[in-house]
Amino acid sequence: MTIDSLLIVAEVAATLVFAISGIIEAVRKRMDVVGIFAMAFITAFGGGTVRDLLLDRRPLFWVQNHEYVWLVLLLTFIAPPLIRVLRHRWVDWLLKGTDAFGLGLFSVTGALLAQTAHMPLIVVLIIGVITGVFGGVMRDVICGEIPLIFRNHQPYALCAFFGCLAYWLLHQTDAALWIQLTAGAGITTLSCLFALIGDWRVPEWPKNQMDAD
Amino acid sequence: MTIDSLLIVAEVAATLVFAISGIIEAVRKRMDVVGIFAMAFITAFGGGTVRDLLLDRRPLFWVQNHEYVWLVLLLTFIAPPLIRVLRHRWVDWLLKGTDAFGLGLFSVTGALLAQTAHMPLIVVLIIGVITGVFGGVMRDVICGEIPLIFRNHQPYALCAFFGCLAYWLLHQTDAALWIQLTAGAGITTLSCLFALIGDWRVPEWPKNQMDAD
Amino acid sequence: MTIDSLLIVAEVAATLVFAISGIIEAVRKRMDVVGIFAMAFITAFGGGTVRDLLLDRRPLFWVQNHEYVWLVLLLTFIAPPLIRVLRHRWVDWLLKGTDAFGLGLFSVTGALLAQTAHMPLIVVLIIGVITGVFGGVMRDVICGEIPLIFRNHQPYALCAFFGCLAYWLLHQTDAALWIQLTAGAGITTLSCLFALIGDWRVPEWPKNQMDAD
Repeated sequence: MTIDSLLIVAEVAATLVFAISGIIEAVRKRMDVVGIFAMAFITAFGGGTVRDLLLDRRPLFWVQNHEYVWLVLLLTFIAPPLIRVLRHRWVDWLLKGTDAFGLGLFSVTGALLAQTAHMPLIVVLIIGVITGVFGGVMRDVICGEIPLIFRNHQPYALCAFFGCLAYWLLHQTDAALWIQLTAGAGITTLSCLFALIGDWRVPEWPKNQMDAD
Repeated sequence: MTIDSLLIVAEVAATLVFAISGIIEAVRKRMDVVGIFAMAFITAFGGGTVRDLLLDRRPLFWVQNHEYVWLVLLLTFIAPPLIRVLRHRWVDWLLKGTDAFGLGLFSVTGALLAQTAHMPLIVVLIIGVITGVFGGVMRDVICGEIPLIFRNHQPYALCAFFGCLAYWLLHQTDAALWIQLTAGAGITTLSCLFALIGDWRVPEWPKNQMDAD
Repeated sequence: MTIDSLLIVAEVAATLVFAISGIIEAVRKRMDVVGIFAMAFITAFGGGTVRDLLLDRRPLFWVQNHEYVWLVLLLTFIAPPLIRVLRHRWVDWLLKGTDAFGLGLFSVTGALLAQTAHMPLIVVLIIGVITGVFGGVMRDVICGEIPLIFRNHQPYALCAFFGCLAYWLLHQTDAALWIQLTAGAGITTLSCLFALIGDWRVPEWPKNQMDAD
């Protein structure tokens, strides 16, 4: 199995896990099959689409890989038995692991594309994070929730931020591209997993300051 | 009256009906005149704008037809008496009919533009459906509701999907363009009307699976 | 101090005040540091980003001025003590004044860019208003609220509308560019301030018509 086909497997796995998180939320909100597909689609492709719009890239991510859209459509129909399976504990961890992995993969890909378009550092970081997390943000907003990553005090977006920063720092050196990308995605994924296992928390604002408003 | 001027009348009617559905929702949410215009504008032009952004088409739909924007602005000011009239039953059916018609017209137009941009099948279908339904989705999200078409178990988006599919299938044959478009829009509109009259329902997920989550 | 550096000071002040309004809303919703930065970013740059997407302008406003993004990031960390200070009455008025000023500055800049892209009148006005107000609209939608400017019966968006109209009217004359811009931004800012001081209200829909639906 070559590196390229490994990467495709990784991307497909990450896309499907993002789609599943949309499906779970849609089922929770008692949506019908149209809503379930829409939420799967938006969660899986939302981040990449916003990135492509901001960077003015065409064809869009999911147009170029339109077989991924078929996969998400298929997933919509086999979701209910899948979600029944998902209640097992190890599946939960498998999902969390793949999600952390998808976050790393998508964020660093976004940062790479922003870097290739000669964006300045802070824009590279922000577009990297947007690519990784914005599908979930759109999922939550459409479901009428304040986005989870804005309020759950878990360092999910920060992991993506520092992973993209690691990629950018290595990009300034002579390191090979695959080292830059692996380091960036790896730091994101591993820190995200450690944060989940260790229950790391983003520090809260002191209460009295919060009440001040 | 030529075909072209008939088409323009159809497009204007569909745009106005979409705008009215935004106005009704805005009035329901006790918005002021700014909100009423914004909701009318977003509901009428939201789907076409997202399509144009995804396909990178400029000028945007409502820039090219900027007299439609004036119409929507005018509509904002004559809306309250209109909405009082709308309580009659036959007006309700007139609105539903024009809405079904607008869904067909906008969806197939979106599919045509995606097809012209050489998009693959699934992208043609999705962009067609987005063009027809996304104004309403944005209306609902801004009003703080989960989008109606994602959860009301009516086949509204599916009608657009199959209409765009019919258009695409005919596009693969030697059929004339007007036959492709009429068939696509007609199937969408008629199936949407039959679904309303017959109260067709998208099948629900079995309850025990829904509760599984 | 030259005009140019005055303009930069003005733009930075307006961006920061927009960001602060995002931060205040995020703190109110008990968001974490990720959410606070996201809300500051979206409120400050949302309007300009939507304008740039609609007009297909690249690089985006905040990519071109990426030092503003650093400023907003910095602001995220010094926000809590700031917000404690903000409880004083004169600070409240300083914020409102700068916000009215930012509304004028951003709206007329948006109208100018739309005019430069040869947009028709109604599009110039709408893109001007979007540039000024859409950051706040996105802030409210993400926070799960119906956008404030759609329902608070204050003429905020109308001030931007008439300011852009004044700019456009002067643009048809021989007036120098700085007169067009100053008049447009000045009318927006001053009418917005007078509306705040005098508690001007957009007329409500008569109650019985609202209940009709």
